[in-house]
Amino acid sequence: MGATFSHLDATGRAAMVDVSAKPITRRVAAASCRVILAPTTIASLGALPKGDAIAVARLAGVLGAKRTSDLVPLAHPLPLDRVDITIEALADAVLVRSQVVCTARTGAEMEALTACATAALALYDMVKAVDRGAAITDLRLEHKEGGASGPWDRETLERETPERETP
Amino acid sequence: MGATFSHLDATGRAAMVDVSAKPITRRVAAASCRVILAPTTIASLGALPKGDAIAVARLAGVLGAKRTSDLVPLAHPLPLDRVDITIEALADAVLVRSQVVCTARTGAEMEALTACATAALALYDMVKAVDRGAAITDLRLEHKEGGASGPWDRETLERETPERETP
Amino acid sequence: MGATFSHLDATGRAAMVDVSAKPITRRVAAASCRVILAPTTIASLGALPKGDAIAVARLAGVLGAKRTSDLVPLAHPLPLDRVDITIEALADAVLVRSQVVCTARTGAEMEALTACATAALALYDMVKAVDRGAAITDLRLEHKEGGASGPWDRETLERETPERETP
Amino acid sequence: MGATFSHLDATGRAAMVDVSAKPITRRVAAASCRVILAPTTIASLGALPKGDAIAVARLAGVLGAKRTSDLVPLAHPLPLDRVDITIEALADAVLVRSQVVCTARTGAEMEALTACATAALALYDMVKAVDRGAAITDLRLEHKEGGASGPWDRETLERETPERETP
Amino acid sequence: MGATFSHLDATGRAAMVDVSAKPITRRVAAASCRVILAPTTIASLGALPKGDAIAVARLAGVLGAKRTSDLVPLAHPLPLDRVDITIEALADAVLVRSQVVCTARTGAEMEALTACATAALALYDMVKAVDRGAAITDLRLEHKEGGASGPWDRETLERETPERETP
Amino acid sequence: MGATFSHLDATGRAAMVDVSAKPITRRVAAASCRVILAPTTIASLGALPKGDAIAVARLAGVLGAKRTSDLVPLAHPLPLDRVDITIEALADAVLVRSQVVCTARTGAEMEALTACATAALALYDMVKAVDRGAAITDLRLEHKEGGASGPWDRETLERETPERETP
Repeated sequence: MGATFSHLDATGRAAMVDVSAKPITRRVAAASCRVILAPTTIASLGALPKGDAIAVARLAGVLGAKRTSDLVPLAHPLPLDRVDITIEALADAVLVRSQVVCTARTGAEMEALTACATAALALYDMVKAVDRGAAITDLRLEHKEGGASGPWDRETLERETPERETP
Repeated sequence: MGATFSHLDATGRAAMVDVSAKPITRRVAAASCRVILAPTTIASLGALPKGDAIAVARLAGVLGAKRTSDLVPLAHPLPLDRVDITIEALADAVLVRSQVVCTARTGAEMEALTACATAALALYDMVKAVDRGAAITDLRLEHKEGGASGPWDRETLERETPERETP
Repeated sequence: MGATFSHLDATGRAAMVDVSAKPITRRVAAASCRVILAPTTIASLGALPKGDAIAVARLAGVLGAKRTSDLVPLAHPLPLDRVDITIEALADAVLVRSQVVCTARTGAEMEALTACATAALALYDMVKAVDRGAAITDLRLEHKEGGASGPWDRETLERETPERETP
Repeated sequence: MGATFSHLDATGRAAMVDVSAKPITRRVAAASCRVILAPTTIASLGALPKGDAIAVARLAGVLGAKRTSDLVPLAHPLPLDRVDITIEALADAVLVRSQVVCTARTGAEMEALTACATAALALYDMVKAVDRGAAITDLRLEHKEGGASGPWDRETLERETPERETP
Repeated sequence: MGATFSHLDATGRAAMVDVSAKPITRRVAAASCRVILAPTTIASLGALPKGDAIAVARLAGVLGAKRTSDLVPLAHPLPLDRVDITIEALADAVLVRSQVVCTARTGAEMEALTACATAALALYDMVKAVDRGAAITDLRLEHKEGGASGPWDRETLERETPERETP
Repeated sequence: MGATFSHLDATGRAAMVDVSAKPITRRVAAASCRVILAPTTIASLGALPKGDAIAVARLAGVLGAKRTSDLVPLAHPLPLDRVDITIEALADAVLVRSQVVCTARTGAEMEALTACATAALALYDMVKAVDRGAAITDLRLEHKEGGASGPWDRETLERETPERETP
């Protein structure tokens, strides 16, 4: 099969691979994760008189997206056109979703994932004193489009290979 | 109950809370997460002639720990004494574990979690072209000690409240 | 008179001066500034259904305080114990106030000022499309305590030298 | 009226808005501020045998411009083509002016303002021990050109709405 | 002669010069340096069972290239397309080579040099306890192409002006 | 022999090693390097009407010292008490010297070396258009004191092992 590890050559040596021959296109990537919380924690978050807790998480996500190439050693620096973070309370978790748009030679998957991770960490930071059992789970790519390999959706993957659903 | 959200006052307003009255003590925090991969991806990682892939992830974790207060908006900057990242291949996942030590007025839980998250993101970045179903899961605190609230282990929590195990 | 420029030696050469002989003490610094806005802008900010605009500014202030030694070339890196940002709507301006606490060999004046500046810039960034006449003004130290020179308040200064009030 | 807050949607939720559909054009932004100082401080600065004090401020401004998207949470990262900082002694203040050029989908107003703010903070940092009454004032956009809304100059604004001059 | 100092105007004033009128072209820069080590240190490095030491240096080089515009005050931020670091053991030194590719208005010479410098510093950091006589030497540009001044190779320079070889 | 590589365990695995059991002491480290330049370049630098070129290099050195733990992956973050950079023109080179002081559990050798490297890179950046043969050489530790191993001077090393002088 042709697919190989990104950033590693045949001998396993790491490098930031050359993308200069790829065309500049508009690219979109979306990711998500959940912060598992006790129901009482979720209720308390909802009862806060002001929305700072959610705003802090959302901002951390936007800032995290912009820091991706500093954090992920072999990621290319990308000029981001859009970063949007959505935070939604579920029954036993807070759902974090990101969408990142860029016009570049390579996609923004890592930016979308890093945005979710930093938003979730910021949320965890606020609840950790009241809910030590909190965990961040199912951080994954949901959608990408705009590169040579065409659009991709996790839903399609899961329909085709249901046994690969993350536990 | 006495416990309240960290960094939020009674009206939900965010701030980096005052820790200047807390004593400086040696603190340890450990966290973990798993990167769910296809078995063929794990086999391919193991077959790489050199260890750069794992080293990249480990380094990203150490650097991530040091950037925590930049990424998590309300986290205090901490002078870290130790950051250790362990990466281990399981049957269907790669297990990432971190241990962070500091001598400070507040604990390094966020540093331990951020270290695991960045190590996992760096690993994801290398496998994403061959394994789009990859996901980062169960990012959680495993252990902490050294603060006023005494030592804590996830194992104890899970024995006492088994229904809180993350799915 | 004994006072000399910080960070400059007698020949005007810049350096980060040696503070290793100074005692570690608890230090507090407070600063403020105003973002001058059209009354209609202030009314529109108040009418927003959610508080993100204010939360964004507050977070930017906290993060700015933590980045001070990156931004102000000769500032010492300080382990901050607290950063608190208050944002209040006045008739023709938004008032930004910061308080920073650290336990260190030198004070956190620059952190308090940088916190106000970044909070104000973040606020400006949100209103700039509707209010191009916006301006940030009167960014100044309000209070400091904890160093060898004793506590200081701007109010006292202004009582003693009223002609020095900033215009 | 059509103008709305940048980065906030109709419900007040913060995001880094999508600029991917905007054309890439050459954009210029200029800003200014003043650091109010005691006349004796200004005289002392001028009497320094070497120019480091001014060079420090100028460099801080250039570096601040490049850090803008790290500091202003919702600002897009921009590939800057030019950053120029001018520092000039007046009778009772030091005047800081910036000009920033970029070729991008959105303008560099925030970069021009951040450049002035960091240059002024760096200058303040050097004089703070001799002039505690120092203040940074009238940080504002002076000029912009290159975007869809056409060129803009503060002078025009002030002629048309003299009552909006900052106090 | 026409050549003048980069970033300095006729009066010696520093600025990040305007490159907005230059065409965007693909540019390549290569640099190198050597870390002088005792032969026993080089033998010990080679005898390490795993390759982390070299991987750490290589990663530091890639990350350093991406941080160049933060570190070199007047360098333009560049969207890097490729960063590759090669590390090779010689008899009495470790040779570090970098190649950086970007598609931009100005070249990546500083990125190539900063990559070598940070890789060498990371290597030094690991050997410093066993080899205090270590030194980093001959950090220099090896090759550049893609700008208006045409391709350039150090070899040519050294053939033409042998007396300029660095000692 | 007892000395081993810093940051690497017996299997070559990289980590930021635990220093929490070491005492906090005042530590000093000094380093130096030379930027080899054509004599005409040195003369031109000296003839500049203002000192910005040297100030830029000096500032870059101070800022580089503060960024060391970001750049050198396994370096501990240190609260620096002093950073001083000296830049001196020689006949065929510019000599860069740094001195760094901290009060910490581990020494500031890497900070002193990183300060020289970034100062030299900043200087190179300004002369590169007029002097492509420029090179940075002999970046090395000159002095350290304050740790368990006692004071150390390069001069002593060179007297005892003259054959180790870097070429």
